[in-house]
Amino acid sequence: MENMIAFIRGIPPAESFPKEKLVECARSAILDHGDQILQYAGSAGYDPLRQWIADKHHTDLDGVILGQGSLQLLDFYIHSNLMPGDLVFVEQPTYDRTLTLFKRAGMNVKGFNLTNGVIDLGEVERSLKGGSIPKAFYVIADFQNPSGALMPLEHRQELLGLAEQYGFLIIEDGPYRHLRYTGEPMPTFHEQDNNHVLHMSSFSKMISPGLRVGYMVGTKGMISLIRQYAEDSCINSSHLNQAVVFEFISNGWLEDHIGSLITLYRSRLNAMLDSLEAYIGDKGEWLEPQGGFFAGLTLNENLSIPDEKTCKAVGLSLSNSQGFFLNGGEKFLRLPFCALNPEEIRTGIQRLASLL
Amino acid sequence: MENMIAFIRGIPPAESFPKEKLVECARSAILDHGDQILQYAGSAGYDPLRQWIADKHHTDLDGVILGQGSLQLLDFYIHSNLMPGDLVFVEQPTYDRTLTLFKRAGMNVKGFNLTNGVIDLGEVERSLKGGSIPKAFYVIADFQNPSGALMPLEHRQELLGLAEQYGFLIIEDGPYRHLRYTGEPMPTFHEQDNNHVLHMSSFSKMISPGLRVGYMVGTKGMISLIRQYAEDSCINSSHLNQAVVFEFISNGWLEDHIGSLITLYRSRLNAMLDSLEAYIGDKGEWLEPQGGFFAGLTLNENLSIPDEKTCKAVGLSLSNSQGFFLNGGEKFLRLPFCALNPEEIRTGIQRLASLL
Repeated sequence: MENMIAFIRGIPPAESFPKEKLVECARSAILDHGDQILQYAGSAGYDPLRQWIADKHHTDLDGVILGQGSLQLLDFYIHSNLMPGDLVFVEQPTYDRTLTLFKRAGMNVKGFNLTNGVIDLGEVERSLKGGSIPKAFYVIADFQNPSGALMPLEHRQELLGLAEQYGFLIIEDGPYRHLRYTGEPMPTFHEQDNNHVLHMSSFSKMISPGLRVGYMVGTKGMISLIRQYAEDSCINSSHLNQAVVFEFISNGWLEDHIGSLITLYRSRLNAMLDSLEAYIGDKGEWLEPQGGFFAGLTLNENLSIPDEKTCKAVGLSLSNSQGFFLNGGEKFLRLPFCALNPEEIRTGIQRLASLL
Repeated sequence: MENMIAFIRGIPPAESFPKEKLVECARSAILDHGDQILQYAGSAGYDPLRQWIADKHHTDLDGVILGQGSLQLLDFYIHSNLMPGDLVFVEQPTYDRTLTLFKRAGMNVKGFNLTNGVIDLGEVERSLKGGSIPKAFYVIADFQNPSGALMPLEHRQELLGLAEQYGFLIIEDGPYRHLRYTGEPMPTFHEQDNNHVLHMSSFSKMISPGLRVGYMVGTKGMISLIRQYAEDSCINSSHLNQAVVFEFISNGWLEDHIGSLITLYRSRLNAMLDSLEAYIGDKGEWLEPQGGFFAGLTLNENLSIPDEKTCKAVGLSLSNSQGFFLNGGEKFLRLPFCALNPEEIRTGIQRLASLL
């Protein structure tokens, strides 16, 4: 096929990158702050950006660390704050790379199934009462990767209550939070209790993944351990890139840029939902995401996800979705919609439907 | 004291950063290659720079990986190619951050003393014959950190012969190699046998540490394991920064820039050696480095390194040198000379001498 449609990775479209603005940011960062940002520097990252994030999250500089993407910081958190064998909870499905990091570090990972976009908090509580108390519960409350789910406010409050009662940490991964295409923002876990929450996010989806600027916001104690581990691992992340992000923000460009992303992505989400309705119909179930990068499709029991070769023959490429599950997931498909235009999305879903 | 003289970290001077040129590199990298380098990208790094390094090292693209500094890659190597409890050899003293990484990962680290700038290869061979065969021997053959030592050619050949005979890896850390102020370049280990050598280096000392661009050159098998570990850890390092380095090279600026660094640093090395001769004299011993960032001073047995408070009173700041040793090191001082001008170096060594 001349135009393969790929529903594979959660990447932004290249046309969204604000190249001219980033050139301007790099210029002023290097010329005005080159003596500092081109040097070895602090392992917690570029202070002006840290302070901006701290202010946004109503915390202090010591509660923020920047890194080469938030995944790197999660790995540092695991190695500096947890021990092999520690119990951690996740939603199932969840972000595959997080599962890889937990498993690689020898964590004991337990998944709670997302059914119609929610986990069964009764099941979580029974597990806790039964003595299975994790060190941390990793959640993506806003527009979950890979399902597109939004955790309801009362679930956030109830889960946080359990974290406080049983003394575990909520790791809240929020890279899609600001990409909301419909509805009103919901409070983060961190906004409700910054002692039991480690909030992580990045500028990968807000500006560009290639900048490699992610961050974590947590208690001073947690961040201090992560910071020492980071310094031992790689001295420091790139303050140059972090200063570029800060210049972008200082110039007042972030809000408008996110606004333009929302406009762009909203039409793509709508194309995805319309196409699922039109072509998949009653062959499967999906949520209606209010934001983010993904729709998650679960096929009916009697249907199978077509194999790679079959897909290729009709010009379709799908990701292996079982990486998002500890077990199961055979009927699940993650459908990223941000890097395809509406026509490509329609064509892709039509091709998928033709194989079911 | 109004002007504290610090012999602490091995950093380049801010006045050496080619800011205007880096602005130009960032501009062309972003405008010409932004679609690729601002996106998520391959975990082995930006291919044009990888290929340039591969060509320099007479190997293939698959034999090169880029990372956020070479220390990060060393950590990835340790986690992907070694197991806790594995035996590794080091020179003693050696780079403190390497010792930290080896120990953190549970390696069994054995040090071979540098005496007058050389290790006793007979002792190494006896250790091997006795069954203590390491997985790897970490060396800094060119202008060693922290001693300034240069490993003689016949020692390189003999040590490589032992690596081949006993089947261990030489990890050759070469960040200072191109900063030679006198004498002729000596072949690297990697130039002599690329099957038993993992060569690591970076652009931190050649352009700027803040760029965070380091690299490793090794066998396809080793690099492949590191690459997977890197992807799992942080998806990818910043191709943007790597593209900036590549633009710098493509514009033909690297050679001239290194030339200007050599001129700048040579006068600082000479000031250091003259000052040691003039003020320290027979109170200690030191090598005459032919390049790099450091002179290493070992005080006579009857003398002690002055404590922090005493130093501060005369306007001097010294690093704790015991981090460079597995044990001992009480009489050793690392004296970095690149980030101080000749007058500062003379003043600093004079102050040190006044305390002995």
